[in-house]
Amino acid sequence: MNIDRIEAARDRIKSAVRRTPLLSAPLLDEIAGRRVLVKPECLQLTGSFKFRGGMSAVSALPEDVRARGVIAFSSGNHAQGVALAARRFGVPAVIIMPSDAPAMKIANTRAYGAEVVLYDRGVDDRDALGDRLSAERGLTLIRPFDDPEVIAGQGTCGLEIAEQAAALGITRAEVLTCCGGGGLTSGIALALEAHAPAMRARPVEPEGYDDTTRSLRSGQRERNATEAGGLCDAILTPSPGALTFPILHRLCGPGVVVSDDEALRAMALAFAHLKLVAEPGGAVALAAALFHGAELECDTVICTISGGNVDAEVFARALARGPD
Amino acid sequence: MNIDRIEAARDRIKSAVRRTPLLSAPLLDEIAGRRVLVKPECLQLTGSFKFRGGMSAVSALPEDVRARGVIAFSSGNHAQGVALAARRFGVPAVIIMPSDAPAMKIANTRAYGAEVVLYDRGVDDRDALGDRLSAERGLTLIRPFDDPEVIAGQGTCGLEIAEQAAALGITRAEVLTCCGGGGLTSGIALALEAHAPAMRARPVEPEGYDDTTRSLRSGQRERNATEAGGLCDAILTPSPGALTFPILHRLCGPGVVVSDDEALRAMALAFAHLKLVAEPGGAVALAAALFHGAELECDTVICTISGGNVDAEVFARALARGPD
Repeated sequence: MNIDRIEAARDRIKSAVRRTPLLSAPLLDEIAGRRVLVKPECLQLTGSFKFRGGMSAVSALPEDVRARGVIAFSSGNHAQGVALAARRFGVPAVIIMPSDAPAMKIANTRAYGAEVVLYDRGVDDRDALGDRLSAERGLTLIRPFDDPEVIAGQGTCGLEIAEQAAALGITRAEVLTCCGGGGLTSGIALALEAHAPAMRARPVEPEGYDDTTRSLRSGQRERNATEAGGLCDAILTPSPGALTFPILHRLCGPGVVVSDDEALRAMALAFAHLKLVAEPGGAVALAAALFHGAELECDTVICTISGGNVDAEVFARALARGPD
Repeated sequence: MNIDRIEAARDRIKSAVRRTPLLSAPLLDEIAGRRVLVKPECLQLTGSFKFRGGMSAVSALPEDVRARGVIAFSSGNHAQGVALAARRFGVPAVIIMPSDAPAMKIANTRAYGAEVVLYDRGVDDRDALGDRLSAERGLTLIRPFDDPEVIAGQGTCGLEIAEQAAALGITRAEVLTCCGGGGLTSGIALALEAHAPAMRARPVEPEGYDDTTRSLRSGQRERNATEAGGLCDAILTPSPGALTFPILHRLCGPGVVVSDDEALRAMALAFAHLKLVAEPGGAVALAAALFHGAELECDTVICTISGGNVDAEVFARALARGPD
């Protein structure tokens, strides 16, 4: 993986992918006690950054391979990203989703034209299901993070952050990323290394699912104790990826771990001051900026809001919880 | 009022005001049966387009006049826009607000550093209160819409729409505006006349407060039967302005009237597919695009989401109502 691959991905996908703005709100700066800039990937098509990686991977396939279709395993955001990417190329997509995925994510994946195959967590053998469908139909598996073209696609978000920060005269900053398997974080870290070397990516995770934070500390890939679902469904992965972890280890600063309650409070503050819908897993980086200032170093922090695909009930819970 | 004044406003305020993106969502296009582009002024600083007009008016004042401070009457969005504009210039702002204004709007206006003076609708004489404070302190009144510099500031939103649509290859479209006193609508209409002559502004209003729609039909300024508050608080004004109406009459297509229920459904769809927080009055143009297609002509509609300053309780009500 290197910067050339990210820049090549950008050139392939730039007409399809939205360049999200870099936002701010005076009242958030006051809460954080520093300048807070927000990269709202919830405004990306499909409501999360995953469309970048999906478009990058699908566009990188040889045409005859792509024509047979793609397959992905995902509880939601990667599903939608791959589904819309496949639709843009007019090729079939099969998405294998757990039956307890958020209803909005299942509905939207279907609405983008994908065939959704549901399985019961803990009962069905997801991988066997995927292998059988892939073999029968000649589908290509698009992995959620441990794939160079997916990492390259997510890295285009980092290219934009570097450019947009430079346009504001900012060279030094911590870039807080919502981190699951590390695709977004590693892509951004590589982009910053090349284009904003005084900025450093720092992964943010929810309590109980802090595999990357612990892995960065120990120097080896650690696993979470549980794989059961939690509030921040978008970023719950068992451990950092085989491809992503070496990049994270080489380039990232220490991880930051936030509570589910802090994620809900950050959602309420994004509602109040940014007018953005963040999903719980997409709000952890903002939560770190607002509530973990003692762990941060720079006068400026840039936070990803990685996605906004949240069911109304969960969002209403964040509003009822409120920011304080 | 002419385009030169809008372009001069743009040059004065461009470093302070956010250039909001032009967004879209494939699933909204399917609902509308046509291409829908959204200009999300909820992402503007202070959460509504009113910061444009506030900055334009405050920046246009002679320095010695500005230094004494400004005053505004507003139930919310204009209040915040003027408050932050005054703060940017380091001058005092007094905002006279009804005591039943949305709590978030009062709190944010104070947080931007303004002195908020509350009055009881139907009891206190708001204008006498304002006159007394202005005289005592030498404050300049910033009107919410019937002021050339305010119209010019709101018109900068129209300049951006014309440029962003042209970049997408769009020349012909209806531009649906959330319309209260007509400041935003008249400013956009003037910008389109100069820079996108095949686009036409069409004001959208809530049922019971369709003064502009009726005025466009009769050719003279009509008044609403009630001045009591309604769901779409941001755009409830007694009648179109003396300055804005001649512009609206010359340039706009027919108005569109939507129900409060349609505004709530549009809020739920903006949540689901755009990940944006729209306030009820800010969602009426999107509601027109999605639910009043038979009244529209063009293959492409561009809707303003004029603001997102909504209390959590009202937003939760829209989520509970849902889109269908």
